[in-house]
Amino acid sequence: MSKQLMTDMALKSWHSTIKRTNAIFEDLSDEEMKREIAPNKNRAIYLLGHLAVVNDMMLPLLGLGETQFPNLVDTYLKNSDDPSKDKYTVKELREFWKTSNDALSEAFSKMTVDQWFEKHTKVSDEDFATAPHRNKLNVLMSRTSHVSYHQGQLILLK
Amino acid sequence: MSKQLMTDMALKSWHSTIKRTNAIFEDLSDEEMKREIAPNKNRAIYLLGHLAVVNDMMLPLLGLGETQFPNLVDTYLKNSDDPSKDKYTVKELREFWKTSNDALSEAFSKMTVDQWFEKHTKVSDEDFATAPHRNKLNVLMSRTSHVSYHQGQLILLK
Repeated sequence: MSKQLMTDMALKSWHSTIKRTNAIFEDLSDEEMKREIAPNKNRAIYLLGHLAVVNDMMLPLLGLGETQFPNLVDTYLKNSDDPSKDKYTVKELREFWKTSNDALSEAFSKMTVDQWFEKHTKVSDEDFATAPHRNKLNVLMSRTSHVSYHQGQLILLK
Repeated sequence: MSKQLMTDMALKSWHSTIKRTNAIFEDLSDEEMKREIAPNKNRAIYLLGHLAVVNDMMLPLLGLGETQFPNLVDTYLKNSDDPSKDKYTVKELREFWKTSNDALSEAFSKMTVDQWFEKHTKVSDEDFATAPHRNKLNVLMSRTSHVSYHQGQLILLK
């Protein structure tokens, strides 16, 4: 009962955070997406690719499947924003972002409550035995905070 | 058992988010605290007061006591940043922020696991009966995301 409740809470928080962040992206024109959030800081187009790839990497981390966009890792995760090296257009990145959110929503909807309390794939059985908080639900909560962190930046463009 | 685990997860996340945010504030000089995070946006000094008052208001919301800084509500919560109306110095606000964090840590350390699953004080018994996720732990999780949101903004000053 309390596991179900906690899972519901964390999922509600995830979905509402994604929804608000998505609304900001949708509200920004393709031109505005190329503006820096602050002088010499990331542009919104970079954050769009960044959030898409971090979403995408949640699939293997949660044992839900392979990544769909390994091609985004270098430009939008390993490196910081470089306006001279745009690998994809805003339109393409919007599509990757949508696909990554749809894939997660679909996969989450099929998970049982107990699965959320299993270890995530980057922690060993030994470590998990002494640190049971390193479960899949904790990944979801920490990724929700990560999206909020960047949402706070994106709102500056409004 | 799972209630204990979930409470531990949410508290770990809260404390680590506060710690990182505090490190950013400590790293900013009093002069830097008066800079805007982006052109025509909030200054860090405003966000310091804002986070202190939102912390402070968690005390009554979680049934942990009265607010300590009702004097911050108008300037740092109800109104947006106005550099011509600084009510407190950076030094004073740093003190309020520290006091609010200490008060929460102290109060949290005395809460039982079951108390985290009780309704918060702004929801009625009737509503809570049909929406049991509106508990104190959910407030903690949503406030953690709120701090992350502003942390993403503060980091822009570095």
